[in-house]
Amino acid sequence: MRIAQVAPLFECVPPKLYGGTERIVSYLTEELVRRGHEVTLFASGDSETSAKLVPGSSRALWRDPSVRETLPHHVRQLEQVFQEAHRFDVIHFHGDYLHFPLLRRHPCASVTTLHGRLHPVDLVPLFEEFPEVPLVSISDSQRRPIPWANWQATIHHGLPRTLHTFRERGEGYLAFLGRTSPEKGLPRAIEIARRAGRRLVIAAKIYPEEQAYFEQVIVPLLRESPNVEFIGEVGGAAKDAFLGGADALLFPIDWPEPFGLVMIEALACGTPVIGWSNGSVPEVIEHGVTGFVVDDVEQALHAVERVGTLSRLACRRAFENRYDAARMTSDHLEVYRKVAYGGARRLRLVPRIESQPAVTSAMLRPRA
Amino acid sequence: MRIAQVAPLFECVPPKLYGGTERIVSYLTEELVRRGHEVTLFASGDSETSAKLVPGSSRALWRDPSVRETLPHHVRQLEQVFQEAHRFDVIHFHGDYLHFPLLRRHPCASVTTLHGRLHPVDLVPLFEEFPEVPLVSISDSQRRPIPWANWQATIHHGLPRTLHTFRERGEGYLAFLGRTSPEKGLPRAIEIARRAGRRLVIAAKIYPEEQAYFEQVIVPLLRESPNVEFIGEVGGAAKDAFLGGADALLFPIDWPEPFGLVMIEALACGTPVIGWSNGSVPEVIEHGVTGFVVDDVEQALHAVERVGTLSRLACRRAFENRYDAARMTSDHLEVYRKVAYGGARRLRLVPRIESQPAVTSAMLRPRA
Repeated sequence: MRIAQVAPLFECVPPKLYGGTERIVSYLTEELVRRGHEVTLFASGDSETSAKLVPGSSRALWRDPSVRETLPHHVRQLEQVFQEAHRFDVIHFHGDYLHFPLLRRHPCASVTTLHGRLHPVDLVPLFEEFPEVPLVSISDSQRRPIPWANWQATIHHGLPRTLHTFRERGEGYLAFLGRTSPEKGLPRAIEIARRAGRRLVIAAKIYPEEQAYFEQVIVPLLRESPNVEFIGEVGGAAKDAFLGGADALLFPIDWPEPFGLVMIEALACGTPVIGWSNGSVPEVIEHGVTGFVVDDVEQALHAVERVGTLSRLACRRAFENRYDAARMTSDHLEVYRKVAYGGARRLRLVPRIESQPAVTSAMLRPRA
Repeated sequence: MRIAQVAPLFECVPPKLYGGTERIVSYLTEELVRRGHEVTLFASGDSETSAKLVPGSSRALWRDPSVRETLPHHVRQLEQVFQEAHRFDVIHFHGDYLHFPLLRRHPCASVTTLHGRLHPVDLVPLFEEFPEVPLVSISDSQRRPIPWANWQATIHHGLPRTLHTFRERGEGYLAFLGRTSPEKGLPRAIEIARRAGRRLVIAAKIYPEEQAYFEQVIVPLLRESPNVEFIGEVGGAAKDAFLGGADALLFPIDWPEPFGLVMIEALACGTPVIGWSNGSVPEVIEHGVTGFVVDDVEQALHAVERVGTLSRLACRRAFENRYDAARMTSDHLEVYRKVAYGGARRLRLVPRIESQPAVTSAMLRPRA
């Protein structure tokens, strides 16, 4: 197929730093090219891809100190996309909703993946205005605030199989990987480690706007906890070794996480996950097989005791079966065919109709 | 004419709090209605207008704590506008550039007033992509970073004649009115007052994100300056009395101010302005008549000495001749007629052409 991928311009594809959306766009794009599709990637000019790159900015906006407003660059990128729309069988948008009014005036086969949390106050009026736009969710949980939108599928994220290294055993510590933001639940992780008498290693990025929270809430906890180590941000081989060396990943989130890439990164290493029953966690973690889904610290302590009984090989197998980039790509191709050749598009301007039964990734064909 | 005014949704029209753009939209809208035009105002639902109101949100987004993202509301508003575009002779956009790709696919007579500072890194690529969009600047100075865009006119802001009260004499103090942001130059104002041995009264809003600057930079200066008084934010009758009672308004800005409404508010009271030669100031202030345009504190001190020699009546007359809402409205009608019936629109997709000679407000017809 002739496929356009439209990435945000905040980070390059793949990202040099944090940037989950741009990473997923990269994995999907490269796998589509590998399968022989004709792919055009609309992304920042410092992106690296085997697809045809149409630069929407000379470099990633987040890393360009001369940029003050990111919106003009994204508006211009939309113009680039729609000027070439006739060249594509399908356009896959990863940048939220800016293109919705254009889609209506320039009909074309499209699908839009929503990568963030859906806040109903802001998005319900918009999606009520645009009930016809085909959408992909990254977890079933993500849809909950707006279940009646034109969802085409839930497509869980996937990673290349060779990205992480399977390790048969952990090295005796619990791991926390992510931002230090309040919603990521780092104080819970520290409490679990203290009460379980286990070593915890924290690899986390501190955002400038969250420095105060880190210093006021996290640093005092670290001071009181000699068995907890903070190692800052990790990437590449260090991240792989860090995740693979853990006995378990703690994912004590305090918000409805739309997906949670770090969970499948851990599974790719064979490391089970102890996650709070929130957002996507119950979908991603198979309780008692690839980790434990818990509701409070007591349950988490119990899970820490039992996590050694889980098979690390089963975690890796779950990753290979459910979370590799090939499966993710096959799922997307199914949706592309549906919107390009099938009857997935709703008619415009009809009264709001009941949404079709959701097509989840489980209902889609197994990967080729 | 059948005219649409499209206001941002951040504040209502007119604003209950700070919101220069929404105030100008209100003055323009009410004057157009008064002259018998058929006006539709796209604005937040708590706006008050004699035009037909199409609410883009139930209330002003800045004052709705449940709102997290403002962009979805503005995207939906654009859809509202373009669904009714056929009903209007001209659509006047006040919300930057979000609508540019839609204009190209849904041709209609439009003009876009840019209300902010034009940052070339972000806007040059966008305006190069959309050289045909008719624009209005709020000062000639504002255009400088992008002089080749499709400017139709500079239209200085205007206020209703009855909004402020002319006062024949000041009450012996210098005034500063505005935000406490670094670019507004408050430390300069305090230095002028101290060195001139004059009383300074500061009416200013402290934004939450600028609280630290206020406490670290401004508070120590206030402590050392017994002749300087800080009275916080003022509005309505208190603002009118505050501006009208001043011997001069100090406008010691340290950035290219796109317009600077407070200067014409002062003139409406008969109060002359001592302003830094930056941005719009040399256009708005007639040096030696309605105030003094200065380059440094020494010149400002000299101006403070001489400001009593200026005629306050001349300041009020300058306001009436150049900055009332009726003149502003006539200027806009001239542009509306040009884009609706004349040849103002550039052809799309031609190589960039030299811009037409700018039509400044001085070249437009005197008000009716």
